[in-house]
Formats: sequence, C-alpha cells, structure tokens
Amino acid sequence: MHANTPALLAALALTSAIAQAAEPAPAAKPNKLSASDVIKASQPSEWRPLDPANTLYMDLPNGRVVIELAPDFAPKTTANIRTLVKEHYFDGLVVLRSHDNYVAQWGDADEKNPRPLGSALKTVPAEFTVPMSNDKHFTRLPDRDGYAPQVGHSNGFPVGRDPKSKTTWLAHCYGMVGVGRDVEADSGNGSSLYAVTGHAPRHLDRNITVVGRVVSGMPLLSSLPRGTGPLGFYEKPEQNVPIKSVRLAADVPEAERSHLEVMRTDSASFKAVAESQRNRPGPWTKVPAGYIELCNVTIPVREQAR
Amino acid sequence: MHANTPALLAALALTSAIAQAAEPAPAAKPNKLSASDVIKASQPSEWRPLDPANTLYMDLPNGRVVIELAPDFAPKTTANIRTLVKEHYFDGLVVLRSHDNYVAQWGDADEKNPRPLGSALKTVPAEFTVPMSNDKHFTRLPDRDGYAPQVGHSNGFPVGRDPKSKTTWLAHCYGMVGVGRDVEADSGNGSSLYAVTGHAPRHLDRNITVVGRVVSGMPLLSSLPRGTGPLGFYEKPEQNVPIKSVRLAADVPEAERSHLEVMRTDSASFKAVAESQRNRPGPWTKVPAGYIELCNVTIPVREQAR
Repeated sequence: MHANTPALLAALALTSAIAQAAEPAPAAKPNKLSASDVIKASQPSEWRPLDPANTLYMDLPNGRVVIELAPDFAPKTTANIRTLVKEHYFDGLVVLRSHDNYVAQWGDADEKNPRPLGSALKTVPAEFTVPMSNDKHFTRLPDRDGYAPQVGHSNGFPVGRDPKSKTTWLAHCYGMVGVGRDVEADSGNGSSLYAVTGHAPRHLDRNITVVGRVVSGMPLLSSLPRGTGPLGFYEKPEQNVPIKSVRLAADVPEAERSHLEVMRTDSASFKAVAESQRNRPGPWTKVPAGYIELCNVTIPVREQAR
Repeated sequence: MHANTPALLAALALTSAIAQAAEPAPAAKPNKLSASDVIKASQPSEWRPLDPANTLYMDLPNGRVVIELAPDFAPKTTANIRTLVKEHYFDGLVVLRSHDNYVAQWGDADEKNPRPLGSALKTVPAEFTVPMSNDKHFTRLPDRDGYAPQVGHSNGFPVGRDPKSKTTWLAHCYGMVGVGRDVEADSGNGSSLYAVTGHAPRHLDRNITVVGRVVSGMPLLSSLPRGTGPLGFYEKPEQNVPIKSVRLAADVPEAERSHLEVMRTDSASFKAVAESQRNRPGPWTKVPAGYIELCNVTIPVREQAR
C-alpha cells in the first residue's frame, strides 16, 4: 500500500520534521489547519537559514548528518567542539554505539591510543544549565511539563527553564545532541557526542551538557544496527561506522554546503504548527488531545528555495 | 571506547527494557537503588511468563519480533488478529513502512490484488478506548500526565484512563503495536499493524486501537532503513522487508518458542523500578528529575531462567 492511497495517507498523521513530506489532506474544518497546511501557508520571513558558523556537517558513508549548534545554551562546550572540529579531530573516528530506544554515540573507539585533543580543552565546565538571561528567544509553550517548570522553544531548540533558579537548558528531545561524560560533571569536553534516537530521555535534562540538534540526516543515525554490547556499544571494531569528517559549514566550500532553513520558533506559523498538533483537525483524528508535549512539537526544517 | 570503560559505563544511564544488559554501578546511597539493582533483587514471583495464547511471533529474515497482545484493551480486534494469524494471513506479507521518529508498519503491499482476509472480519468496531471495568490490573503512576487524566500500568502495558468517562486505553509508548485504519473509525481490522519506533506519539491515544507491545526484537523494526516515500513508505517493492510468518506462540512447537517473562507491573519491584527512574541515584546523576513520564518507565523483560 503506497502513500497515494488516501486511506493510508489518512491512516497515520505525520509528524515528520521535513516539511516537504506529504501530509494527509482531510476535509479541514474552518480554522482547523494541519501542520502541513500551516507550513505551506507560512511566510518566507518565518524561516531562517542555518548559521554556517554554528552548523556541523558529519559526513558518514551513507550521507550527511547536519547538526545545528546552540551556543547560547553551551557556550564553552560548543567553543571546544568548534576547536575539535577545526582541527579535524573527528575525521576518521567512528559511530561506536547504537542503543535501541536511546542514543547513537560517536567519537574515539581506541582506548589504548586515544587521539590527542590538540588545542581543545580536556575539561570543560559543565553547562547542564545556563542562566536564563543567555536566552533571548524564548517562546513559551502553555502545555504543562513534568520535567521542567516551564517549557518552550528558543531559536529552533526545545528548552526547559526554571524561573526560580533562573536557569534554562536544552531538552533531550529526539535528535538532540549531547556531550558524553564520566561521573565528574566537568568531564564532558565534546569529544564524545550522542544524538537521541528514541523516546526522549528527559531525565537527562540538567544532567548533561546539550549542544544542539540534528536538523537533517537523522535516519543515518537512527537506523544504524544496534550494538550487541551492553548499553548498545558495538563489540567488534568492524561494526563501528566510520566518520569521513565533521566540519563546520563555514569551512566547507559553498558548492558542498547544505541549504536548509528552520522555521522561526517565535513566528506566528510556528505557534500555529504547535496548535495544529495540540488539536489536530479531523476527520481522521477523533479525539484531539488538547495538549502537546514539548518533544512532540515539530520544529520544521526544509530545503531553501533556490 | 567499549562498555568496559567505567567512564563510558557511567556516561549514560541505561533505560533498556532488557534486564540482562549491564547497568552502571555507581556508589549507591542507602535506599537509592538503580533499576538494575531492583531487577537483580526482585523475586521470581514478581515476574510472569508470556501467555502463549496472547503472544505473537513475527519471524523476519533477521530474527523474531515477539508481541504480547492485550485482549482486555481490544477484545474484538485482538480476536480478529488471532483469526488472521491462525489462517497465516501475514505469512509472506511485508514490512512496508519505516518512518523515522514514528512507526514501522506491516501488512499487505499489494493494492491491486489484496490478500483475502479469510474468516477474519473486514470491519471491527473501533476499540480506541474500552470501559475501565475491563482492566483488573491497573497500578497508578502518581506522575501527572498531559495526555490522560490518569496514567499507570496494567498487566505489563502502559495505560491512560479517564475516570469521568470511565474509559481506559493503551498508551502509544515506544514498542506499542497499533492498528492502521482509514478515516472511518471501524476501518481498522488488524490486517495492517504498526509499532512505535520513535518518540511516543501520544496524540494517537484514543484515536486508534492499540493491541499490544513488542517485548523482544524491537531493533529488527527500529533499525530498518527509512522509506523514501512520503510518510516513510518504501517506494520500491524490493525495499519491503519480507515477513516469513506471524504465528501465535500457542501454535508453535515448544522447541521453537521464546521463553520470556515480564515483570509484574503490580509488584513491589516494578514500583521500585519506576521510583529508581523517577529519582535516579548518583553519583552520575546530579539532578534527579523527581518525575517520570509514563513512556519513560521501563517494563522489564528477560529470558526465563531454565
């Protein structure tokens, strides 16, 4: 059964982050738009291109993973990652873990002869949260959250915040990229990174530095064979997935760049996307939830029109 | 870096549903057990074997997916699925969709010459919710949920319930299996099934009949290449993943059966598992969440001791 079948198109509502994918087109009631309707009707000014200085390209054998960094939420750590990337630290390293319903993780698999960090710092202060004042772009979601006193979005990222302590942090939604660490809080220097590939492990919020989001190429990570070792690590070196390179988009020739844009999360259309998912229009949906969880809100990404 | 490294073992807390996987072993404070500690200390009576009459084996080229049915929550639909299975309906059909951060879906890919349903019903009344009285095993989670007035577990399944309407339903957590349907509420007959392979799409709760849970073999579905068509459907027939057979465990010779057991969700150990995840012990965890979302609670499964 193919997507052309109206039955199947209607069968399951789409929550893809890629705006181009076809959405079912039910007979919409007035004022009840689907997320796809909203995206189609959005204004060009409601989208922003990725900033090449804050965009990483991780080129794997089967394609490119594009990661948008959020320096406001991890200034020291993202700076250290930029240093590592500029010095080609990740080139030739590997994806070494694929843990079902959890994460894919990449970095240096060689414990005996670890690759030198070059100019990058071995220890970076933990940035599990940052001051709320770092965040100039917060748009609150009215939906109550169990893991954070307030939730919402900031410049394309899902965030939690605590007005009492005046702190904020990136939430561990699907596709978010965090920094592996040891027991010591400052032990995550950015040389070991992971992306969430399953149900959002929100208990990790405020316990680990989160540096950004995969905006394109998630399937390259989420469909990797699962590691057979404990915690999903690959047990044999030949199972590791080689990383051709990780580069800052700004250092990549224009002809090789990706051209993506993200919907502005302080835009009217983004607010309408969240509402269209909070109260989905029929006729397929029978009982609109009247609520949306932070990590269920699509943050649309698309190819720039060129 | 392999799991033997204490650093990496500690690096990311484990939420695997397979109790055998090694958990990091931090210096636990008294009374602060990890989920793994709880599982190890659990009593044999706190586990129940799968009921062969309510267990499906979906044998794929690379292994077996074991699905536990929840007839209390979808009596008519699970009966229809059992009819289909007994008549070998799924044998030789395919996994035809793998939609990133959403579902894998299987059934009949041939629209022009659909396989006859045999004795199974073409139309089954929607069982999006059932009366609360159907559920004799509910154990409530105290943690507030945005999608349901109450949440908890019932006989190994995550559930939502609404005391006002006295209805209950299975929640769309990772691994849950639901019934594809068209716009008409009664159009899901069980011949098209899906499993959640990404962040829990809780907005589907109460909108679709949910029939059970994958208790083993999730990676066989979650790591499938993503379909390139809209909604993640495979566009070319050769991409479809063949299903060798779907059988009821009761109809499978003993020598071919799986031997799994699930922790009883009304047991003291299960309550302790949820608590160990609600308030994770240090030293790796710095800020226990003090909250757990329904779909973040591990429902442990293990091989029976034999």
